[in-house]
Amino acid sequence: MEGTEKKVAKHKLACANKVKYLSGKRILPGPISKATDIVKLIDNMDAYNGGRLRAACHLLRDRYSREDVTIGLSLAGALTPAGLGPSAIIPLMNHGFVDWMTATGANMYHDLHFAFNLPMHRGSHTVDDADLRRKGVTRIYDILFDYEDVLMETDRRLIKILVRPEFQKEMGTREFYHHLGRILNELEEKNKLGEVSVLAAAYRNGIPVFTSSPGDSTIGMNVAGLELLAEASGLQDLFKLKINPSIDVNDSTAIILNAKKYEKGKTAVILIGGGSPKNFMLQTEPQIQEVLMIPEAGQDYDINVTDARPDTGGLSGAPPSEGATWGKIDPTKLDETVTAYLDVTVALPMMVAYVIKTTRPKKQKRLYDRGQELHRKLIKSYLENNREVEKLKGLIRKLIV
Amino acid sequence: MEGTEKKVAKHKLACANKVKYLSGKRILPGPISKATDIVKLIDNMDAYNGGRLRAACHLLRDRYSREDVTIGLSLAGALTPAGLGPSAIIPLMNHGFVDWMTATGANMYHDLHFAFNLPMHRGSHTVDDADLRRKGVTRIYDILFDYEDVLMETDRRLIKILVRPEFQKEMGTREFYHHLGRILNELEEKNKLGEVSVLAAAYRNGIPVFTSSPGDSTIGMNVAGLELLAEASGLQDLFKLKINPSIDVNDSTAIILNAKKYEKGKTAVILIGGGSPKNFMLQTEPQIQEVLMIPEAGQDYDINVTDARPDTGGLSGAPPSEGATWGKIDPTKLDETVTAYLDVTVALPMMVAYVIKTTRPKKQKRLYDRGQELHRKLIKSYLENNREVEKLKGLIRKLIV
Amino acid sequence: MEGTEKKVAKHKLACANKVKYLSGKRILPGPISKATDIVKLIDNMDAYNGGRLRAACHLLRDRYSREDVTIGLSLAGALTPAGLGPSAIIPLMNHGFVDWMTATGANMYHDLHFAFNLPMHRGSHTVDDADLRRKGVTRIYDILFDYEDVLMETDRRLIKILVRPEFQKEMGTREFYHHLGRILNELEEKNKLGEVSVLAAAYRNGIPVFTSSPGDSTIGMNVAGLELLAEASGLQDLFKLKINPSIDVNDSTAIILNAKKYEKGKTAVILIGGGSPKNFMLQTEPQIQEVLMIPEAGQDYDINVTDARPDTGGLSGAPPSEGATWGKIDPTKLDETVTAYLDVTVALPMMVAYVIKTTRPKKQKRLYDRGQELHRKLIKSYLENNREVEKLKGLIRKLIV
Amino acid sequence: MEGTEKKVAKHKLACANKVKYLSGKRILPGPISKATDIVKLIDNMDAYNGGRLRAACHLLRDRYSREDVTIGLSLAGALTPAGLGPSAIIPLMNHGFVDWMTATGANMYHDLHFAFNLPMHRGSHTVDDADLRRKGVTRIYDILFDYEDVLMETDRRLIKILVRPEFQKEMGTREFYHHLGRILNELEEKNKLGEVSVLAAAYRNGIPVFTSSPGDSTIGMNVAGLELLAEASGLQDLFKLKINPSIDVNDSTAIILNAKKYEKGKTAVILIGGGSPKNFMLQTEPQIQEVLMIPEAGQDYDINVTDARPDTGGLSGAPPSEGATWGKIDPTKLDETVTAYLDVTVALPMMVAYVIKTTRPKKQKRLYDRGQELHRKLIKSYLENNREVEKLKGLIRKLIV
Repeated sequence: MEGTEKKVAKHKLACANKVKYLSGKRILPGPISKATDIVKLIDNMDAYNGGRLRAACHLLRDRYSREDVTIGLSLAGALTPAGLGPSAIIPLMNHGFVDWMTATGANMYHDLHFAFNLPMHRGSHTVDDADLRRKGVTRIYDILFDYEDVLMETDRRLIKILVRPEFQKEMGTREFYHHLGRILNELEEKNKLGEVSVLAAAYRNGIPVFTSSPGDSTIGMNVAGLELLAEASGLQDLFKLKINPSIDVNDSTAIILNAKKYEKGKTAVILIGGGSPKNFMLQTEPQIQEVLMIPEAGQDYDINVTDARPDTGGLSGAPPSEGATWGKIDPTKLDETVTAYLDVTVALPMMVAYVIKTTRPKKQKRLYDRGQELHRKLIKSYLENNREVEKLKGLIRKLIV
Repeated sequence: MEGTEKKVAKHKLACANKVKYLSGKRILPGPISKATDIVKLIDNMDAYNGGRLRAACHLLRDRYSREDVTIGLSLAGALTPAGLGPSAIIPLMNHGFVDWMTATGANMYHDLHFAFNLPMHRGSHTVDDADLRRKGVTRIYDILFDYEDVLMETDRRLIKILVRPEFQKEMGTREFYHHLGRILNELEEKNKLGEVSVLAAAYRNGIPVFTSSPGDSTIGMNVAGLELLAEASGLQDLFKLKINPSIDVNDSTAIILNAKKYEKGKTAVILIGGGSPKNFMLQTEPQIQEVLMIPEAGQDYDINVTDARPDTGGLSGAPPSEGATWGKIDPTKLDETVTAYLDVTVALPMMVAYVIKTTRPKKQKRLYDRGQELHRKLIKSYLENNREVEKLKGLIRKLIV
Repeated sequence: MEGTEKKVAKHKLACANKVKYLSGKRILPGPISKATDIVKLIDNMDAYNGGRLRAACHLLRDRYSREDVTIGLSLAGALTPAGLGPSAIIPLMNHGFVDWMTATGANMYHDLHFAFNLPMHRGSHTVDDADLRRKGVTRIYDILFDYEDVLMETDRRLIKILVRPEFQKEMGTREFYHHLGRILNELEEKNKLGEVSVLAAAYRNGIPVFTSSPGDSTIGMNVAGLELLAEASGLQDLFKLKINPSIDVNDSTAIILNAKKYEKGKTAVILIGGGSPKNFMLQTEPQIQEVLMIPEAGQDYDINVTDARPDTGGLSGAPPSEGATWGKIDPTKLDETVTAYLDVTVALPMMVAYVIKTTRPKKQKRLYDRGQELHRKLIKSYLENNREVEKLKGLIRKLIV
Repeated sequence: MEGTEKKVAKHKLACANKVKYLSGKRILPGPISKATDIVKLIDNMDAYNGGRLRAACHLLRDRYSREDVTIGLSLAGALTPAGLGPSAIIPLMNHGFVDWMTATGANMYHDLHFAFNLPMHRGSHTVDDADLRRKGVTRIYDILFDYEDVLMETDRRLIKILVRPEFQKEMGTREFYHHLGRILNELEEKNKLGEVSVLAAAYRNGIPVFTSSPGDSTIGMNVAGLELLAEASGLQDLFKLKINPSIDVNDSTAIILNAKKYEKGKTAVILIGGGSPKNFMLQTEPQIQEVLMIPEAGQDYDINVTDARPDTGGLSGAPPSEGATWGKIDPTKLDETVTAYLDVTVALPMMVAYVIKTTRPKKQKRLYDRGQELHRKLIKSYLENNREVEKLKGLIRKLIV
């Protein structure tokens, strides 16, 4: 008898579990028609990476849209050359969905062409590159531009900016881009092309921008070139710009600590591509927990749009769950993470359109303006929490001898 | 003197060529806003695969939309399970942009669930598959459905259809799907779920559908099962369904020959994914030129949406230019081909939305209804053109002895 | 007190679990040196896809090598054009590690060039394809060959074979390739190039070969062309070759059923690439369980080398665990499956070298020769086990009226 | 008459061109046998990415092996965690095939575990990450290690190293890694595990190592943590370590300039993965030409092993020909570049084995030891060649006011 009851109970449990598996929305989308708009189109995507795009858009609409969520945007890949600054990134910033940003130096360098009104053109990726080189045309996949009139001209203008007084000090890229953004903002206004520069938009909106590889890209190359010239000419006391990456590590970490510990809010990331910008954005939590030894649980929401797969060994493809084992992502929130294996030049515009159409603009957090406050809070928490502080101080003091 | 002139001329030529490289539209897209619709969003995509999506959409709008263009659609990958039938493929068919179709058997098998009103559900790809198997749940990536109530039930209903009289003969998949589509169309009407079955839509619109691997997929498995049963039970004289792939090879070829030679029109393909459906669609031209020896130049327009790259050895990733060396694609028209490395669950809905919003419905060519006429034309051209016909006849006649 | 004990116990359990996670071999490979051979090189691969390659090789050495394991090899992608027939596939067949095979028609078509002694050449994938077409050169990625002297000549010779008497009947590709293989074997001997044709090697070793898409590829095109000619010339009574895919479905299924049910052995697959050959090989188990309703558990071992990822929707990338929910793979044996995301032109030669160096040749199972016996066993099990048989017979009998 | 002659001549030319296309080695590899070694296996690879691997190996054997070729190795992706340091990278360094190196910070951080004798283990990528986090196990794809005993312990030991006197200054990563390498070399000797640390091997061989994103990775995090502590504790005068990326930009550029201009040699790169290490290595030529305005032509040889495709927008996938339009690669040498789309955990060991088996060890160039000499030469060439030097000096001098 009991056996039968047990069997029945077991069967009921099995059925319940089965029902759970089969409780997702039925796959039965409506037909695309003249009336279908972007929101409907995405809401209609049921499965595979289309389903991930929908999940990402819903996370943006339902979670990222909240005022207490601090959003980081990381950019890798040729996004600004492809025009995604004016079309998608700047609108997303203006909409209040970007509170801080990491980007490759290359993305910020090519942003200059837009601010300087130097044209890049649609072209083809199947051209004769030796001929391009002969003719003085430079190529980024299917984007073509003049080597002399765009690339070299950008460098010439950049150099004139880098020797301005406000740049003559040690700083992080956060401050560096702020000064640069102010100048680009002025140029942008003069050029009357509309809002075309990401760095100018960051300046206006008080959004801190970081590059984790400051020497990598033409901006870093020109900074290094000027340092070399200053050294060669004995002018080191005049040209004093030095990028200190440690400042950036701590300043980015301070953003997350403030959002979580001091403002009791949540943090979210939008990772466009992978690479060093992704890692730099995600290492803020390990910096808090592992290095500064402040108890914390990891970022709350994570959207990752990439073409890199985890099996190929690049960090670019590492999924949120792997990040959870490092303390990067809160392991209890893995359901609120999305990895979409999509081409970013298609997915990012769609996500931005979805956000703008389904949410109200968020109030800008203007975290750049609060840099010193955040830095103080970071030190405060560090000194309070790090059980090793005294030992470490002792280690440093030994250096006196 | 002359040297200088030559130099000047050379310099002018170099500049002219440079100008040509830099003559593409300037990359300066407008900002995404509340007013941005799907068409604007795509028109705004300047580079990388976003640029390819735009190019594909413009080809659809400007070339495929013409009444004299015969369009083939090939489907590989889990498209019908993901719901792309009702959302995108059927609307594209209804809009007159699909004149013939190739698909994997799996896509047509899973189309049955929709016609039979048996639900598939959104799920997750990170589930415990051993547990799913125990519970009787079947998975296609992130799509879940009941093994007994959906999979086995589909088979049971399919079998009852396969033993109907109209199926008891040798035929190609073109005819097979036509009979199947008629029944699915009736079921679809009864179920009142709207237009959900691709095969039903093909039936209504007179669109011939082909599967190049008729034994591969659960449809083919059930046909084979019935044949086995008939043999085992001595009922071979009653169950007479046999799929003859040669009929399909010639019937698909006849479509292209008619469009080009007899109607002096153009042919175009939309290749969604790669695999056997892509190859089967593209081999029509080599069948004309290489096997039937009828002079021809290759398909005129080619849009390929795939995630497969050419270097990995699959036909799925072979680009149109490689196809040109086989006679598949007209080598003089390579500029009117587009390969977009995009996820089809995102790209296909976008393309369909673009087409429906920017073009008028095309008149259905109803090529299924014209099957016999096309077959006769194929034979006619073959006998006229193939220099080897007499020799071949001689070879066959030797078989008498 | 009890609380403390519980805590201690809990902690111990946690530690035990942690130890389990950390019980894998330490990552500390020896240095590659002049003495390193292929086996050592692979044994030394600790992680990522290198680790998967090692796992696959160990599965081959430790499991596939057993005499009671029946091995299926599926081939998709341009393997024979790339020369992998003579270098890797034929040696693996000769070593007894291939008991049956599925392949795209294209792989078998290009195998003919080798048997016919018609040369293909190393070339480049960045050539001017329009120029190639003009010059009469055909391209498969970086492989180049003469359109007239190789492609057309292969067709001409193939046609002469197809009109031989042994081909004048309805058959599956299994029998078709057997007849073809016998002729290629003779040609191969005459040409004295060594063992270069996969089909000839299959013939010699009694290995059944299947193509699930018989009309897709130049072989299928020529069969169709001859059928068209026969029809056009009233010679249908002489040229009687018809490929019936249902025969192949049942013949391939019979192999698995025999190995598992009748010989109490195990079955294993080596899936090179994905596509229709992969699905056709794996659908044998669902054919047994779902269609023929014979209780069974799925294949035992599964090695899949592919570049397709599961998220992109192609069956090519579907992992073994997904297959387990369909009954394709035994869900209790998922630990003995390996998916390696590797380029097959590198991975396959490495695996074959590993097998040949670490295992003894297996006795050939010569399953082709046992075709009728296997077919009888399939019918026997079907009639015994299928609870629906009588119902189905009834359905077919209704066709009399 | 003339027309006929012309036609004949034209036909001859066409034939000649056709012959050229078909002049590549015939695809007819020998069978893999017990006697096949790694060199034979690779030499036998005719096409697709296998063919690229062969081409890369031949380039290494025939060009990179020359004493006048200066070789840079860039590392991105989880190479040291996967054990490729001891197995492949260190043997390649010892063989004299690495004259300078760029790497992500993560690769150099995980190199520490090996030097510190802290174990990482083979594991699985399909584990429950929330459980791992609970148990204190950290994951890198399929590599598992203890959070406390490995990750945190590495940090603790690293910190004690970072507060040593030799680190208390501004420096580039080149010098930073040199000091670190010396200490790791000592530890490695004590641990008696053999040569397991890439940084120790770099130290011994005088190989300069660069990381372009010094703040990105746990090494950079700990440097930043100590800087924060020093600031918070008023100990800035004691802890003075600052990484200046500009020093690295110029020091890496000096290597290329010396090799090409001063030693009239050639330069070559082995790019394993993409990302910032790839770009940083390749930007040396633009730094010479574009920023320092010294006429130069680009690197001579380029081998790139990556899974990133150019169309997805990451620099990781940008091919050498695109690099040629930037001056990175000599456009006249594009034939001596190879891009192989292969998994690096398989391809790198194969390439290293091939090199060690087919070439003699090269004399170490010990470029680290020559750092000051190279720096002086860079300044010398800069001052001689840059037409803008005086203008730039003037710009800097304006800062006085």
